[in-house]
Amino acid sequence: MTDTINAQDHALTADQADEQARREEELIQRVLDSFDSTPDARLKELMQSLVKHLHAFIRDVRLTEAEWEQAIEFLTAVGHITDDRRQEFVLLSDVLGASMQTITVNNPANGDATEATVFGPFFVDDAPEIQYGQDIAGGAHGQPSWIEGTVRNTRGEAIPDARIEVWEADEDGFYDVQYDDHRVAGRAFLRSGADGEYAFWGLTPTPYPIPHDGPVGQMLAATNRSPVRAAHLHFMVTAPGYRTLVTHIFVEGDPQLEIGDSVFGVKKSLIKQFAEQPAGTPTPKGRDLGDQTWTRARFDIVLAEDTDEQN
Amino acid sequence: MTDTINAQDHALTADQADEQARREEELIQRVLDSFDSTPDARLKELMQSLVKHLHAFIRDVRLTEAEWEQAIEFLTAVGHITDDRRQEFVLLSDVLGASMQTITVNNPANGDATEATVFGPFFVDDAPEIQYGQDIAGGAHGQPSWIEGTVRNTRGEAIPDARIEVWEADEDGFYDVQYDDHRVAGRAFLRSGADGEYAFWGLTPTPYPIPHDGPVGQMLAATNRSPVRAAHLHFMVTAPGYRTLVTHIFVEGDPQLEIGDSVFGVKKSLIKQFAEQPAGTPTPKGRDLGDQTWTRARFDIVLAEDTDEQN
Ligand SMILES: [Fe+2]
Ligand SMILES: [Fe+2]
Repeated sequence: MTDTINAQDHALTADQADEQARREEELIQRVLDSFDSTPDARLKELMQSLVKHLHAFIRDVRLTEAEWEQAIEFLTAVGHITDDRRQEFVLLSDVLGASMQTITVNNPANGDATEATVFGPFFVDDAPEIQYGQDIAGGAHGQPSWIEGTVRNTRGEAIPDARIEVWEADEDGFYDVQYDDHRVAGRAFLRSGADGEYAFWGLTPTPYPIPHDGPVGQMLAATNRSPVRAAHLHFMVTAPGYRTLVTHIFVEGDPQLEIGDSVFGVKKSLIKQFAEQPAGTPTPKGRDLGDQTWTRARFDIVLAEDTDEQN
Repeated sequence: MTDTINAQDHALTADQADEQARREEELIQRVLDSFDSTPDARLKELMQSLVKHLHAFIRDVRLTEAEWEQAIEFLTAVGHITDDRRQEFVLLSDVLGASMQTITVNNPANGDATEATVFGPFFVDDAPEIQYGQDIAGGAHGQPSWIEGTVRNTRGEAIPDARIEVWEADEDGFYDVQYDDHRVAGRAFLRSGADGEYAFWGLTPTPYPIPHDGPVGQMLAATNRSPVRAAHLHFMVTAPGYRTLVTHIFVEGDPQLEIGDSVFGVKKSLIKQFAEQPAGTPTPKGRDLGDQTWTRARFDIVLAEDTDEQN
């Protein structure tokens, strides 16, 4: 602690640095103590841990008063741009990796269970149902993509009748709900078959930026970071007795994977080959794609048993 | 790390806990790396330290997704109540001790130099000038109080002509600027004399609550904390070559000192005896107080030499 202080407050003698550390630590203790009579034990734990980490940050960086003021101004701007349609605090959490860390913490590793990733703001809970091999595009533009796989548990057993929600942006990078015309496109749900199998036609995913015309976008620009999300297709898979899986699949070879996904949603296990098929290649189910190229990808899903009372 | 995870995710085997820790740490590394090409070295340091502490908090408490949502909602409410007149993010920083820690970090210990405390929102920079022994009340109601002392440096030398700004609430707990009638009351500045001496008539300070009808007030209520500030009188003292001192003095025996100052501004060295004087006790400068009681307090101020380029 004393070392940290000396590093920045260059003028302090050893005695002064000791006294300074004592003052800083005594303040933390007082703030911690102030939460001691919180009736809810979990709230108390959260507040006291928050205080410890917040004060450790201020001490570690020796935050200046001008920087503190900038932080207040930044948070104020985040608050003021946030409304019913735009949630800049969620964006902020996303670009700091806090959303992804929360998801990681709440989806503990379990053998080869498929890894979870961020939910994102574009899920809609009344998507239309499709049958095995049907198309989710609903008129959304983009390169057709055949996606197939199975739903199994960590013991390798098929899970029939799992509900598989899928949703994705069109080739311009927009979800249906971002248009004003109430279209339903690029989303659907289907159910796995008797052997856990599923398949559907979607679109080869393309990258799109998170909203970056606000304070979070300014922060990304100031830190030389890309606002773009790696191309992805969203999945949410539910089945009784299993932990709900919220995840994406990503596109092998997408240059944004190297640049970095702006919300840190990528996990290596979720990157899939979307194999390019020349125009005229025979399609599954004999769909006529004329002179269009298409891709195909495989995503075998493994659900974790639901061992946790909170799910 | 593995211990922390096991403590909460009770179902994890040792192997699963190791893999889980690896995933959480790998995510942090990716977020840290994303800030690597930040052009401004200080901004890079701030962001990377913030990421470390934020992720450590999420991991330590095993933040649930429901708690994350509550945090987003809380910050959104803080943002929405904040406007030109009300700064709920500053209040939030204050009640978490973050404001006080920032001040502590920026006013390093220096011998017997007077300790700093929070600035508060009620300073006005065109307060009237008074002379030695004059009254700052300007019609504000409260018990008269004679405050006197000296301004010296850490070598004990008098600092003449220091500018001493003082401001305080009236006996109802309101500053002049909180009234709608443009009054100027309970604030003034004066200058120290040839031997560093100063004195003025003010009011014996009384406790008042911070605004607690918003989300920060709800947080204080949920954690069983008082919104009240310990009674205090604000000082800001400036003199060329010395670090600007922003501080308060507090009132020995104020019950709020035991309960706890809501913004953690109290330091033991700043608690002063406001000695009660029965009605009729002869006053300094022969002020006629009729049948009013009054108090007297002494506050000897020691300024730190300004050794820091940033002041
Ligand atoms: Fe998305
Ligand atoms: Fe005050």
